[in-house]
Amino acid sequence: MQVALEAALQGPRGANPLVGAVILDPSGEILSTGHHRGAGTAHAEADALAQLRDRRPLPELSDCTMVVTLEPCNHHGRTGPCAAAIAQAGIGSVVYAAADPPAEAAGGAGYLRDAGVQVRSGLLPEQALDLNQRWFRAKAQGRPFTTLHIAQTVDGLIAAADGSSQWITGRAARLDSHGIRSRADAIVAGTGTVLADNPRLTARDAGGHDLGRQPLRVVLGRREVPAGAAVRGTDGRFLQLKTHDPAAVLGELAARGAGHVMIEGGATVAGAFLAADLVDELVLYLAPLMLGAGTRSVGDLGISTLADATRWRWDAAEPVRTLGADLRLTLEPLPRSRHNERP
Amino acid sequence: MQVALEAALQGPRGANPLVGAVILDPSGEILSTGHHRGAGTAHAEADALAQLRDRRPLPELSDCTMVVTLEPCNHHGRTGPCAAAIAQAGIGSVVYAAADPPAEAAGGAGYLRDAGVQVRSGLLPEQALDLNQRWFRAKAQGRPFTTLHIAQTVDGLIAAADGSSQWITGRAARLDSHGIRSRADAIVAGTGTVLADNPRLTARDAGGHDLGRQPLRVVLGRREVPAGAAVRGTDGRFLQLKTHDPAAVLGELAARGAGHVMIEGGATVAGAFLAADLVDELVLYLAPLMLGAGTRSVGDLGISTLADATRWRWDAAEPVRTLGADLRLTLEPLPRSRHNERP
Repeated sequence: MQVALEAALQGPRGANPLVGAVILDPSGEILSTGHHRGAGTAHAEADALAQLRDRRPLPELSDCTMVVTLEPCNHHGRTGPCAAAIAQAGIGSVVYAAADPPAEAAGGAGYLRDAGVQVRSGLLPEQALDLNQRWFRAKAQGRPFTTLHIAQTVDGLIAAADGSSQWITGRAARLDSHGIRSRADAIVAGTGTVLADNPRLTARDAGGHDLGRQPLRVVLGRREVPAGAAVRGTDGRFLQLKTHDPAAVLGELAARGAGHVMIEGGATVAGAFLAADLVDELVLYLAPLMLGAGTRSVGDLGISTLADATRWRWDAAEPVRTLGADLRLTLEPLPRSRHNERP
Repeated sequence: MQVALEAALQGPRGANPLVGAVILDPSGEILSTGHHRGAGTAHAEADALAQLRDRRPLPELSDCTMVVTLEPCNHHGRTGPCAAAIAQAGIGSVVYAAADPPAEAAGGAGYLRDAGVQVRSGLLPEQALDLNQRWFRAKAQGRPFTTLHIAQTVDGLIAAADGSSQWITGRAARLDSHGIRSRADAIVAGTGTVLADNPRLTARDAGGHDLGRQPLRVVLGRREVPAGAAVRGTDGRFLQLKTHDPAAVLGELAARGAGHVMIEGGATVAGAFLAADLVDELVLYLAPLMLGAGTRSVGDLGISTLADATRWRWDAAEPVRTLGADLRLTLEPLPRSRHNERP
């Protein structure tokens, strides 16, 4: 299970949880390892089964065990149900860590048992739940998983005193953030950012061309978005929501089928989502620059004393990465139960 | 030389340059590697010679070559001159990358030649100079090397709106910063910080006890430091300088023999040194907290537009380190010649 948990960390956070799977032969040797690589791609169990196909000689699969960090799903989403795939492959036994809570995906264990597969659960469940604590929370709240994007100087600024902000980070960091855009179902920015920078908010490749998968472009706020604004585009994937209430925004986007929302900025929008505890993942691009004066990356959070600071942890699934001259740091909110754990 | 340069990166920055040394046998095999571990400890050459002592069998040293990133010194500082030590050990030949510029240390190559050692120079000199670019600059300006210490939230704040700041970072990060204090000759803070937090500014161990080596505690500013202020201490190692001019401060501390000054803060003092381009190393402790509102880590730098931002690079000698819940990032100013190099 430890190997499966580590495999899970390889995937990107987003609309789906991080899941890892390992297939063991009768002697306990690892035959294959799989993980989920993001919404729309094979689930961890299917990935582990696919890795198995190239392996020769293959033992009798009815003698083999699949160890997976989450109960195999039982629903037809963008990919087929894993429970059926496991049963069809002839895997003899399945051990999973934690149950899959969403109602539409549950029932995988029951399906497997009915199909004659031996099923056990509860191996390292705390680690498996901790790995996806914010994803489970988002699901329980019936809203999309959210990623807040911030590109700032080391002194925490996203624009100089005169408003200049292009570019704080270099090409590699910007390209990386376009990768998040292309995985997200919707990208959210405030009217202030749209009016100041006239961004397109599309996901683009290194050559500046639109990637195949594009998020819905959502502008928040009451101010009018000009008819010629780049964000409107021509593909119909533009939406203005005349509110700054993050819960209302996520409710509206959930109703439109969004499982993963990227919050692009600026400081007012970022502050509103942070203050409402509706940021599940913070991707922080840190440019080796100092400005001293300018626009802060985050607006007021209603916090006046240090004891009330919002608390985070560095995401184990996303190690610190150097992108050109910049660093990428990824954080997730510390689970409430651990707020007093800081050393 | 590449191995010697990598060895040099192991040392801490401070009063002395980063230097690495390698001793090769006649066939070019590495016999030992040494590096400088900070002011008052053995130089890289002596370190490499010391490592050699335990090695058996030892080839004839007159057939061996020492490769060192900086011209061996020829002065009696806190340790003896390296040139004499190399000659006495009987090393047959020395290759160094770059000349040692300080007048009092120069002449090592000449000494070695007079002692019958074969001497060559100029192997990878640019890398060796680049490694210590800010140290050479400080020496050329006749001032101490400076380390700015900042402990901030990820949104760049060092105190909440109500002034609370103890503690932004955890124990491990604070202990690490006490290690810098104990290596520095002087530690500088503004009257604002002293009046707000009443810090001792001593270097302490994990148990809170004063370490053996203590920096001079220097308070900058015109406001009176109260008679009972902790920073005054009882050891006589306290000094108030009624100025905020960083060049004047460093001149005064150089006159008192300081080779390494740590700038503790707060934002006004940090801003003054940064604006004067008198910070050689920035050690940034980043706590996984967000406050939204509070005191910024850096005061005004007189910069109004992004193109004028101060530019840095992540210090190759100090990789990102996790300290408890916090991260430690180390930056150094980008050499002026490279300001347009950002990707």
